[in-house]
Amino acid sequence: MECPRGLAGVVVDQTKISSTAGAHLTYAGYPIEELAHASFEEVVFLLWHTRLPSENEIAVFRHQLVSQMVLPAETVRLLLYVAKEPQHPMSILRTTTSLLGTTNDVDHDEPPKILAKMLITVAAIIRIRANEPLLEVDPHLGVVENFLYLMTGKRPSKELARMFSTVMILHADHEFNASTFTARVVASTFADYYSCLTAAVCALKGPLHGGANERVFEMLLEIKEQGLDPREFVEDQVKQKRKIMGFGHRIYKNGDPRAAILKQIAGKLAAKTGNSEYFEIQRQLADYMLQRFNLHPNVDYYTSLIYHCLGLDKEVFTMLFAACRTVGWLAHVMEQRNENCLIRPNSEYVGPTDRHYLGEQIQKRGHA
Amino acid sequence: MECPRGLAGVVVDQTKISSTAGAHLTYAGYPIEELAHASFEEVVFLLWHTRLPSENEIAVFRHQLVSQMVLPAETVRLLLYVAKEPQHPMSILRTTTSLLGTTNDVDHDEPPKILAKMLITVAAIIRIRANEPLLEVDPHLGVVENFLYLMTGKRPSKELARMFSTVMILHADHEFNASTFTARVVASTFADYYSCLTAAVCALKGPLHGGANERVFEMLLEIKEQGLDPREFVEDQVKQKRKIMGFGHRIYKNGDPRAAILKQIAGKLAAKTGNSEYFEIQRQLADYMLQRFNLHPNVDYYTSLIYHCLGLDKEVFTMLFAACRTVGWLAHVMEQRNENCLIRPNSEYVGPTDRHYLGEQIQKRGHA
Ligand SMILES: CC(C)(COP(=O)(O)OP(=O)(O)OC[C@H]1O[C@@H](n2cnc3c(N)ncnc32)[C@H](O)[C@@H]1OP(=O)(O)O)[C@@H](O)C(=O)NCCC(=O)NCCS
Ligand SMILES: CC(C)(COP(=O)(O)OP(=O)(O)OC[C@H]1O[C@@H](n2cnc3c(N)ncnc32)[C@H](O)[C@@H]1OP(=O)(O)O)[C@@H](O)C(=O)NCCC(=O)NCCS
Repeated sequence: MECPRGLAGVVVDQTKISSTAGAHLTYAGYPIEELAHASFEEVVFLLWHTRLPSENEIAVFRHQLVSQMVLPAETVRLLLYVAKEPQHPMSILRTTTSLLGTTNDVDHDEPPKILAKMLITVAAIIRIRANEPLLEVDPHLGVVENFLYLMTGKRPSKELARMFSTVMILHADHEFNASTFTARVVASTFADYYSCLTAAVCALKGPLHGGANERVFEMLLEIKEQGLDPREFVEDQVKQKRKIMGFGHRIYKNGDPRAAILKQIAGKLAAKTGNSEYFEIQRQLADYMLQRFNLHPNVDYYTSLIYHCLGLDKEVFTMLFAACRTVGWLAHVMEQRNENCLIRPNSEYVGPTDRHYLGEQIQKRGHA
Repeated sequence: MECPRGLAGVVVDQTKISSTAGAHLTYAGYPIEELAHASFEEVVFLLWHTRLPSENEIAVFRHQLVSQMVLPAETVRLLLYVAKEPQHPMSILRTTTSLLGTTNDVDHDEPPKILAKMLITVAAIIRIRANEPLLEVDPHLGVVENFLYLMTGKRPSKELARMFSTVMILHADHEFNASTFTARVVASTFADYYSCLTAAVCALKGPLHGGANERVFEMLLEIKEQGLDPREFVEDQVKQKRKIMGFGHRIYKNGDPRAAILKQIAGKLAAKTGNSEYFEIQRQLADYMLQRFNLHPNVDYYTSLIYHCLGLDKEVFTMLFAACRTVGWLAHVMEQRNENCLIRPNSEYVGPTDRHYLGEQIQKRGHA
């Protein structure tokens, strides 16, 4: 059986977690447009249990997550050591995710603990990079409020927490995207959770995947700083055979439903934080990309500006994506483990055949 | 388009690196049975360039690899720190592979350097675990002789080096196995080499893949120490619905061509090192598995005993697999990069549909 390259459009397995069928994104059957108003904890619970939690379950789950948002002294010690190197935060996260799997109990850790550790790790890397002290969770706040607080050192307003919850929810899962598929392939060998997550971080790092959000901001910065016309910028990139970051999608050829919601948040936050100039560039760029190539913005396009408005460095944008997507990675690893089948495809050999090795001595004499 | 689970039998891409067509393993068109007599460096060159090197090229390539088998002081410092934790060597390797990508030049490192660093890292982890000092490469020896020397502290005899070269060659590549496919998925996002290798290590760690060789030896040990009848052991495992490690293969249903060669090496080495009892257990076990389930030994079965005969702890067996397979991982990452297409499959959603979110307050009151 032969497949299109990149497994484009190929159904490789069933799932009960999320769906992009008909270009509508749903988590366990709920439209993403409705879940955008839910609490983050509810959505995590939904993706892991394929049903919404009861009132009591939300409270217990929130407590379970928040109380685990603390790093063992051991991990902090190693993290300080590792994060000292001048390097990309996604490399630090890759190493630290792997380290979490050695300083914790690999065989017994459960997803709530693992998610909490990933969130606090991302926040810790941001603080260490900024030479700021690590903070402790506030048991009275939810996961999102704490995550923002631990990263920025500021307790977020209700409005900001609501906007950021939506961003985290929209990034939480996306069925078999490249990093989630990577996590599932690794899970299919029955490797431990931390190995699955480390591999997913590796895939997310790539510019064609999660790495795009950082590059979107580099582009906006270049256009703004150099006073370029967005249309000329596009033409120039195309001439150099470069892709425009934040546009196009394997599944959504007529627009990414997440981008529509994120655009509104980006617009509001940009206005509030004096970043409207970037938003205006984004508008012009998106208009031109649509008209010129029929390409729509994807999830990374407006998220990039949102993260900038939060005062974060562009280098940490992809790490935030990783923090949110850990929810989906864990959901898919659980699903893969429950009904496992080793993911091991075939390839078609198209090189030379019927060659014969004559021995190093003979090759050496040049008779090969 | 729908596929069998686990992508079994599904051709996902073309390759010029290796083939298992017709259950014959070939590297760039050369039968593995012939290449088993080649030098390791020749085979690495072959897998990376799809042609054998000239006499001059072998010498240059050997020098290039050996001269890079040294770790920067920085990496050693971090490695000593990381490897201090009581943890599985494959976890240490996962972290260290990631670290190699931060202490080295991610954007400019080339495969020969990366392979050399992986080999020396594996050797270093073995030495650190054994509380032995790290050793320096001997520029007069080849890659395999150096690798053995750096691990064991002993310069190998010609005969041992020859046998071990064959083992390394047989493990070097195997088209789209789970860890290599993982590396290709990660490469398809244009993530860097070290991210691709880290993810591959994650997948290899699983017991259904590279993790099997350690478990094969655990099984042999249990049978020997407890004086069990191999047949009863098998029946007991089957009753507990456990798989017998080292048997079965996604591709080879009538026997793994590598196992035939490895069996001879294991037999010779076992006789030489007083381990014939294990080899006899393997013989009985394999006979029974064939007769009872028509299952043949795979690459991990005899390799396990070979590594034991070299005096290595079972905990490091999978790490040796990683050292050898790094050759193939790098070959496939290069190939994927050269003709890239994002690997992003689809899934079929089979959960509940048409659900609606009523708001946290309403859910809370139990109307969901
Ligand atoms: C996401 C992405 C990898 C999807 O790739 P895909 O499904 O394999 O689609 P292709 O890359 O084959 O794109 C189809 C066509 O649109 C073009 N295209 C797609 N995205 C483009 C972009 N961002 N800029 C310019 N052209 C683009 C391709 O060049 C291709 O043109 P062609 O048919 O003339 O060769 C791709 O759109 C991309 O690289 N986008 C930029 C990176 C990005 O934002 N990634 C984050 C995704 S959430
Ligand atoms: C390698 C492996 C994952 C291939 O898996 P696969 O192609 O998906 O094949 P399956 O697991 O579906 O095996 C087919 C049948 O043989 C059985 N089988 C396969 N390997 C077996 C083993 N090692 N012990 C017992 N039964 C085995 C399966 O249970 C299955 O039986 P069923 O049809 O009655 O359910 C599998 O053989 C295995 O788990 N082996 C043990 C681990 C190992 O040695 N891995 C190293 C591979 S190099």
